[in-house]
Amino acid sequence: MAELRKDPVTERWVIIATERGKRPFDFVSEDFNEGDASNCPFCYGNENKTPSEILAIRPKGTSPNSTGWTVRDIPNKYPALNKKEPLTQGDNGFYSQMTGFGIHEVVVESPDHFKKFQDLSNEEIQDVLKVFQARIKSLYEDERNQYVLIFKNEGPQAGASLSHTHSQIIATPIIPKRVLEELDGVEVYRKNKQGCLFCDMIEEEKKVAKRIIYENEYYISFCPYASRFPFEICFLPKYHQKDFYESSEHLEEMTEALRITLSKLSSALKRPQYNFIIHTSPNSNNPDGSKDRDVKDYHWHFEIMPRLTKVAGFEWGSGFYINPTPPEEAAEYMREAKQKLQTS
Amino acid sequence: MAELRKDPVTERWVIIATERGKRPFDFVSEDFNEGDASNCPFCYGNENKTPSEILAIRPKGTSPNSTGWTVRDIPNKYPALNKKEPLTQGDNGFYSQMTGFGIHEVVVESPDHFKKFQDLSNEEIQDVLKVFQARIKSLYEDERNQYVLIFKNEGPQAGASLSHTHSQIIATPIIPKRVLEELDGVEVYRKNKQGCLFCDMIEEEKKVAKRIIYENEYYISFCPYASRFPFEICFLPKYHQKDFYESSEHLEEMTEALRITLSKLSSALKRPQYNFIIHTSPNSNNPDGSKDRDVKDYHWHFEIMPRLTKVAGFEWGSGFYINPTPPEEAAEYMREAKQKLQTS
Repeated sequence: MAELRKDPVTERWVIIATERGKRPFDFVSEDFNEGDASNCPFCYGNENKTPSEILAIRPKGTSPNSTGWTVRDIPNKYPALNKKEPLTQGDNGFYSQMTGFGIHEVVVESPDHFKKFQDLSNEEIQDVLKVFQARIKSLYEDERNQYVLIFKNEGPQAGASLSHTHSQIIATPIIPKRVLEELDGVEVYRKNKQGCLFCDMIEEEKKVAKRIIYENEYYISFCPYASRFPFEICFLPKYHQKDFYESSEHLEEMTEALRITLSKLSSALKRPQYNFIIHTSPNSNNPDGSKDRDVKDYHWHFEIMPRLTKVAGFEWGSGFYINPTPPEEAAEYMREAKQKLQTS
Repeated sequence: MAELRKDPVTERWVIIATERGKRPFDFVSEDFNEGDASNCPFCYGNENKTPSEILAIRPKGTSPNSTGWTVRDIPNKYPALNKKEPLTQGDNGFYSQMTGFGIHEVVVESPDHFKKFQDLSNEEIQDVLKVFQARIKSLYEDERNQYVLIFKNEGPQAGASLSHTHSQIIATPIIPKRVLEELDGVEVYRKNKQGCLFCDMIEEEKKVAKRIIYENEYYISFCPYASRFPFEICFLPKYHQKDFYESSEHLEEMTEALRITLSKLSSALKRPQYNFIIHTSPNSNNPDGSKDRDVKDYHWHFEIMPRLTKVAGFEWGSGFYINPTPPEEAAEYMREAKQKLQTS
């Protein structure tokens, strides 16, 4: 049983995962065993150690949950939110709460226990992106899923508990605060400047040309002007598009640009631990979720954040960030870093 | 040279500390040497290794920057913000920026290299709190200091780079986003319910009595209903007061309640690494900063956050938090945990 609770001061929601119920002595640092593939639930032959697969890219004729797959989407064995919960919102005396309805899946990005996402071939990465798109599209058919967040935790400092390359998908019954803030920013900009904030930002970045890491015809990556973290990266389409899952048109160019960007990050920082998240538009199938919101101005993007510094008291207390590396310098390092050659 | 930059999408400010200018190979994990006091700049005899002290509690007749002090407030040797910068705001093409004006100080809380804050005596802790209050009061005399944040990073995972017990003070020329969010929440509540949100929350917590850790006549600590982190604690006065620095009246009770709360946290989690921050009201001497804001409804508080879990992609991307320990259980562990006896 999980439960959503709203902070009455800041209106921030929290998932209280009561099912896990960690006690004080449970917070010992977990082993993060990179080397031992024999027992890894994401390796070939261990498919029965995970819940039954939802979607997989696998050769025709092979059965679900057998080997042979190249990308595999499965329910998270320890979900933060659960689709079996009814979706009800209520008051708990002074406070507001919701049941822990939601979806939590894991995308295993390769059967190879040792390759990282950026080491995969264009074809392999493209398959992962296709699975991401298919899952958002499918989850948005249920209007209770107001938002779908796809994210990657690479390395223990970035929050991963298994080393085998994977991403996660969480669908929530409300639009998260961070996405609402971006929607607000985009709306205000549209009112004042009659344009898309992200499209105009790309124009500015191309004009200044100091923070760009890589670009091709349709995609661009740069270090944001107000980067919170050293070597933070924004990756997005150069044309206006609100939904990540609609971007099937230029998928080859997206794959190539994303792979090269991550490969340069990996090379400049010697395989850092990092998070990435995909910010796509909220579910527009949901009349409640977007009735007050014109989400057409949203512009989907990846945020990529290597974990080099510790977030400390000042950041928690203020929402300010202290970034010890100017984004202009970070971008220069990555621009000049070697990219891994495409081998397949 | 540091510079403040505003994210055009979310209006979040970032301090780009260009003076540090960390390059890729600078991000090696720093040594965090607990044991070696001989070279510690916060120990007796090493006062000349820090900038000249601003304020110290020391026996009459001893000179500044000599030994004998019990609490010592000094400028941060590597400040994130600098008071020598002029305070100017401007545009950088598409983006907004400000010069890196501000204050960054360090409060060394004890000459003892090995004691942690919660191990200090009531008298010692009270002296630290007095120094905090005196510094906020003094910094708020300069209307450019719109906000003063006091925070502690205890342990390397919490962002500390020196193990000798200390806190930090940062004054910023704008009110931080997190504080603005709290002010908004407090204002909305006042409009709808004609009361102080924090005062009413305390009433609710006393009524429910499941999340309280400790209380005396004037102070209370509890695990917030929507705790972001396992064993998160809110500590605040039971009477309405907006400014931390005005609370000299019941300082003995504050000290006792804070020491016991931190001591119970330390005992329940076996001396965890943690952050605390003090949220006090913004500078009301500043006509620009608070002219649109009625800050009288603010209610100062400590947020205390042990660092047990990793903040990962989901939290960064959503602003949602996943907390694996219900606050009711966490509070019970701490209520029942032994407190260290007061020895001095």
